[in-house]
Amino acid sequence: MERLVIKFGGTSVMDAERINKAAQIVLEQSAEGVQVVVVVSAMGHATDHLIALAQDVCSKPNARELDLLLATGEQAAASLMTMAIGRHGGRAQCYTGAAAGIVTDDNFGDAHIRRIDPRSLENCLRQGVIPVVAGFQGVTEEGEITTLGRGGSDTTAIALAAFLHAKRCDIYSDVKGVYTADPRLVAEARQLSSISYVEMLELARHGAQILNPRSVQIAIDRGVQVRVRSTFSPEDPGTLVTDHAKQRGHFTSMTCDTKRDCLAVSLGMPTSDSHHLRRFRSSRLHWKNSTVKLFAATGVDVELGNLLKHDPRIMVFGVDKKHADKAKALVLQASNGIRNLSAHVETDLACVSIVSGENNSAIEVEAILTLTRSNIPITFVTRSSHRFSLFVPTSKMHDALNALHNNRVLLAKAA
Amino acid sequence: MERLVIKFGGTSVMDAERINKAAQIVLEQSAEGVQVVVVVSAMGHATDHLIALAQDVCSKPNARELDLLLATGEQAAASLMTMAIGRHGGRAQCYTGAAAGIVTDDNFGDAHIRRIDPRSLENCLRQGVIPVVAGFQGVTEEGEITTLGRGGSDTTAIALAAFLHAKRCDIYSDVKGVYTADPRLVAEARQLSSISYVEMLELARHGAQILNPRSVQIAIDRGVQVRVRSTFSPEDPGTLVTDHAKQRGHFTSMTCDTKRDCLAVSLGMPTSDSHHLRRFRSSRLHWKNSTVKLFAATGVDVELGNLLKHDPRIMVFGVDKKHADKAKALVLQASNGIRNLSAHVETDLACVSIVSGENNSAIEVEAILTLTRSNIPITFVTRSSHRFSLFVPTSKMHDALNALHNNRVLLAKAA
Repeated sequence: MERLVIKFGGTSVMDAERINKAAQIVLEQSAEGVQVVVVVSAMGHATDHLIALAQDVCSKPNARELDLLLATGEQAAASLMTMAIGRHGGRAQCYTGAAAGIVTDDNFGDAHIRRIDPRSLENCLRQGVIPVVAGFQGVTEEGEITTLGRGGSDTTAIALAAFLHAKRCDIYSDVKGVYTADPRLVAEARQLSSISYVEMLELARHGAQILNPRSVQIAIDRGVQVRVRSTFSPEDPGTLVTDHAKQRGHFTSMTCDTKRDCLAVSLGMPTSDSHHLRRFRSSRLHWKNSTVKLFAATGVDVELGNLLKHDPRIMVFGVDKKHADKAKALVLQASNGIRNLSAHVETDLACVSIVSGENNSAIEVEAILTLTRSNIPITFVTRSSHRFSLFVPTSKMHDALNALHNNRVLLAKAA
Repeated sequence: MERLVIKFGGTSVMDAERINKAAQIVLEQSAEGVQVVVVVSAMGHATDHLIALAQDVCSKPNARELDLLLATGEQAAASLMTMAIGRHGGRAQCYTGAAAGIVTDDNFGDAHIRRIDPRSLENCLRQGVIPVVAGFQGVTEEGEITTLGRGGSDTTAIALAAFLHAKRCDIYSDVKGVYTADPRLVAEARQLSSISYVEMLELARHGAQILNPRSVQIAIDRGVQVRVRSTFSPEDPGTLVTDHAKQRGHFTSMTCDTKRDCLAVSLGMPTSDSHHLRRFRSSRLHWKNSTVKLFAATGVDVELGNLLKHDPRIMVFGVDKKHADKAKALVLQASNGIRNLSAHVETDLACVSIVSGENNSAIEVEAILTLTRSNIPITFVTRSSHRFSLFVPTSKMHDALNALHNNRVLLAKAA
């Protein structure tokens, strides 16, 4: 019998009425003759409330205890969902992450799944019972409860789909699927019927809060078909995330992220003297390499960027706000051999990204021209094979998104 | 090194401030050179909120899932308490009931502790770390989470004290100790320095919400010294519950319970004919025995009572409100051999109980006279070796308690 993992996000289980609605979706799918496994997030803003509570008790709560606390949110939602399925005539059983056999490392607060022992869930499915698994959590080899980081319920769902050999993982939330842009910000945004894994990964990593990036990586690694759909429009097939994107020819999606700062580093070296310049270039390269190594070793999330007008004395990085101060300290720490090095963090920026089947310079040029025509200043840009990102003032983010989305040339070039 | 189990009730961990205050009490005790084990209830009214949530989702939630849901309340409180102890410089580790080795039967919602495997807590204590255990919960042999019924955190604490051979179990709540009566109802009530186990058990079983009756039974069975004290007056030694009550000579305590109804059974048989009367008495005895057996077999909580004026045709029972309808049905079911038997449940009664070192008829007579003088009607009475209970209209409960408490003769006779 085919298997389907269904995951409900926090807004889909926000209250008793929504939990019952979600339970009906489960039973409709189950009635179609597939074995269903349910994964739930904590109700609404439960996780945020628990974090606030912990911070009230103790300004810097220990990650181990915080995980025990946060795991209660999903445990509660899972038991309520199990009750709701029972109320509507289904047979369901509730599992914590530990009971579902989800074993993680002991990186409390951001644990990685090491393996899933599927025996208890397999046994449950064999008996015709629907397992309801608390998302976002696992257990270490030593039996300590861990959580998988923000959005970790997506990871639970997609990892379970992989380990249970499910035909698909349906991620239900309050959005109908993946759009060409966030429809709350761009009125003309249209829904996509499918998107490729790599494009989805770029979206997830650059501000689209549809799927957690780690869960997309698992989907890629294990070939899990994922469907993003809405609890409030269950008849809508949503967007399929897969390795065969049907609309690749036409597709560009955009996203934006206000959680990144610009770390600008000035390498105060005169450019007039050619001897000095050579020395400068050599030490710059050396400095850059050692800095990148430092970033990687300390887990700081940065991306090297480019100014629109190249200046060898200035290097810019896009950096996660949480890591900005640390990144600055690391940069200064690596400054051996560079005279007069100074670094500063520029905040209040938004990173607007264009994700496409394949990035190319035509897209980049058109995007830059579009923003320039709209008088939107571009601080710097970053790129990957499927993405081009422009850092603009936060106040201009909305305008930038709409200007880019309205540009038909850009859409065509992205094709 | 001596050991002490400290349990905090819901009001003692209601918010971040109180959790921190409780953590300080723990550290003060720990600084005195004892090994401390902490047990916590859910925060404030968390359990009530979770039950309401479950009932919103599903009018009759399954006991198994409800336990998984309710257990989150204590798990959350335990992790917050662990953080608070850490904040104040202590070393603590959080344990769910399962992690603490508390194994129960699978009577979900009202499970009994079968055994405690103390290894994980012993190991924690050996390392100089304070274990913080989520109260009210355990785990079946099959690994399913159970709860121990209302007030079950007392049970956790006293059972842990027994299994860990603690010198004492301190139960912290918002009351200073055990009083001669509930001080919210009787202004003259005074605090007791000690009380005997059996008296405490009678109080617990008849409405005093200081300790859960099952926990007192464990204290009796395993000889655990219990101290009832207040988080808000930690300098007050509270009341010691033990087998040597120091004040036995002077002591009477009173309690009241509005959770019991009167089940009155009329055995409609004439008393005029002596032959009939003999037959009636014989069948009455037979009926009474079979009814009591039925009650015991079905777990219905009833107690045979007495009318002030004996009438062989009427039998009265004090019955837990939750069981009243079932008790009535059982009475009618056992009516074979009794003609014209009818039963009705009288509600809106309060059961006022006098608990003493030893019950005697002088106490009973004085109590009845006291209420009669105060024009408080007595529906019926029940008794045990350490208790005499009077059922009065709920509206008269407050007056009855105060009339009894003000009676110096009664207090002397109870001596």
